[in-house]
Amino acid sequence: MKALVYQGPGKKSLLDRPQPVLRDPGDAIVRVTRTTICGTDLHILKGDVPTCAPGRILGHEGVGVVEAAGAGVASFKPGDHVLISCISACGRCEYCRRGMYSHCTTGGWILGNEIDGTQAEYVRIPHADTSLYPIPAGADEDALVMLSDILPTGFECGVLNGQVAPGGTVAIVGTGPVGLAALLTARFYSPAEIIAIDLDDNRLAVAQRFGATLTINSGKADVTRIVRDRTNGRGVDTAIEAVGIPATFDICQNIVAPGGVIANVGVHGSKVDLHLESLWSANISITTRLVDTSSTPMLLKTVAAKRIDPKVLITHRFKLAQLIEAYEVFANAARHQALKVIIEP
Amino acid sequence: MKALVYQGPGKKSLLDRPQPVLRDPGDAIVRVTRTTICGTDLHILKGDVPTCAPGRILGHEGVGVVEAAGAGVASFKPGDHVLISCISACGRCEYCRRGMYSHCTTGGWILGNEIDGTQAEYVRIPHADTSLYPIPAGADEDALVMLSDILPTGFECGVLNGQVAPGGTVAIVGTGPVGLAALLTARFYSPAEIIAIDLDDNRLAVAQRFGATLTINSGKADVTRIVRDRTNGRGVDTAIEAVGIPATFDICQNIVAPGGVIANVGVHGSKVDLHLESLWSANISITTRLVDTSSTPMLLKTVAAKRIDPKVLITHRFKLAQLIEAYEVFANAARHQALKVIIEP
Repeated sequence: MKALVYQGPGKKSLLDRPQPVLRDPGDAIVRVTRTTICGTDLHILKGDVPTCAPGRILGHEGVGVVEAAGAGVASFKPGDHVLISCISACGRCEYCRRGMYSHCTTGGWILGNEIDGTQAEYVRIPHADTSLYPIPAGADEDALVMLSDILPTGFECGVLNGQVAPGGTVAIVGTGPVGLAALLTARFYSPAEIIAIDLDDNRLAVAQRFGATLTINSGKADVTRIVRDRTNGRGVDTAIEAVGIPATFDICQNIVAPGGVIANVGVHGSKVDLHLESLWSANISITTRLVDTSSTPMLLKTVAAKRIDPKVLITHRFKLAQLIEAYEVFANAARHQALKVIIEP
Repeated sequence: MKALVYQGPGKKSLLDRPQPVLRDPGDAIVRVTRTTICGTDLHILKGDVPTCAPGRILGHEGVGVVEAAGAGVASFKPGDHVLISCISACGRCEYCRRGMYSHCTTGGWILGNEIDGTQAEYVRIPHADTSLYPIPAGADEDALVMLSDILPTGFECGVLNGQVAPGGTVAIVGTGPVGLAALLTARFYSPAEIIAIDLDDNRLAVAQRFGATLTINSGKADVTRIVRDRTNGRGVDTAIEAVGIPATFDICQNIVAPGGVIANVGVHGSKVDLHLESLWSANISITTRLVDTSSTPMLLKTVAAKRIDPKVLITHRFKLAQLIEAYEVFANAARHQALKVIIEP
């Protein structure tokens, strides 16, 4: 089969690889019908993710059809249409029992990282019963691929951790795909204000179309002053950090209100300054999270009920054979005005 | 009356000052029968608290007897025995309605800071109805002084924010009075382990006597290794930072388990490094808080029911006339093996 293989920092190729086979009784083999590329894949390609060894098939998002299921799989059989979660979870360890699937002792984020992933024609999914979700045969697969990672990440790490609430004020710092996923799902809770902050006017225009009540280009304007003016000097109840660099974490520290939350979503490569000399008495929380995908069943219902349309995040489509080109577009998102790309094997 | 007056960085004197009088309808004048000194008073004396101007009577803890009450005071009358909260709260503003009294728009921590405090024979308490608590006439006043600040601070900022829970593991970094207050109140929730960490063996011995299940001298031993060994490699569910310097915040970052909380209690004078490059995916929370004293009614019940004895925190007693000497002892706590000192006007 064709698969996108990581070959060490800066290197990737579309190669012929053997089809995966069942290895453990809990495994399923899924024929991938849609996949996508994630910012994390770009981190791997930069060499930032030491757990991902050269030779690995990348990708941790996708939908597909079950091709084979191990003897221990109770919930799925060949022919079932499924959503693949970016998090593999045994459902049995202490972390899984707490709903913290991201830290499953034999799973977590392993797909396209410690084991071969979804940017291929077929993928082996361990712990299939608790790592796949059934979807209707005729479902809109493009939309549902957004539920593998990006939508639960924005929702769990940003909106839930950030305690977005009716009447509250939310700032989203960084309006790339994950920031926009946070924006879309923040609206479930009817906040009074959603302030979108980015350096790219195109992305801010998208944010406004998606429901931001105020947009600020942080390269051109004084974010702290504008946010303070807009909130009677208080700041925001929720500041969602959706970039992963010290400068954007700093914006969050400057605009969070007493009693507020800084919900970190960004993948950080270096330490940041935490200004406890001013924040020690501010009654704030800072949260971090690797998505647990514990909200996936709920998000599937919101999509089915048309309360959210994840397809608005999709800007480009490619065939599996064009995957190298798809990476080029995604890695230069601003130039191509790209958000999420759909890959069709 | 005699009062301890702050006279600018490094300077304080016991001076004769006029007795306070009622100014607003919500005020009460309280004759102070017991007060104490707080670490925050030492911060003021170092010049670290710009809101506290020279000429200010210090002190924000105490019990006493109501001498006079303004026309707007509904709950207290002259002769009532009262506990003075370190936080003055109007009970009406948006923050008060959320129970975040520390950020009351006309109160908060103002006593012995922006208005004259309790290290005197008499003190004016604004918003008396919501800043004083009734205590029985024959109550043990020494014990109750610990409920003005130190016990709710350890409890709210450390134990409640830290989500201490039955079976959980707790580390308390810094076993001065506030760390010990956190230790005493953590025991309400029956954690499996309370690990006390400090540089002072005397304080660690006290922590052990108070219920610590393991003590570590961080100047002599590798805290991270010992804590990891003790917790099957996971770390602690709750790390309470009760010092307020980068080194102790760092210990907390090194020992917090996935899914855990770093509950900051310490008053910080400078920024700290936050290692988001490793913590971004650890599903942790970091909390900060100026005590709200929203738990004071609950703590009064635990004292009355003898579930906790706050007097164990008291090591020294002084008369008001000896207040300068009391400061000397408290400021050199390690040398004097001092925890909290009681001042009796």
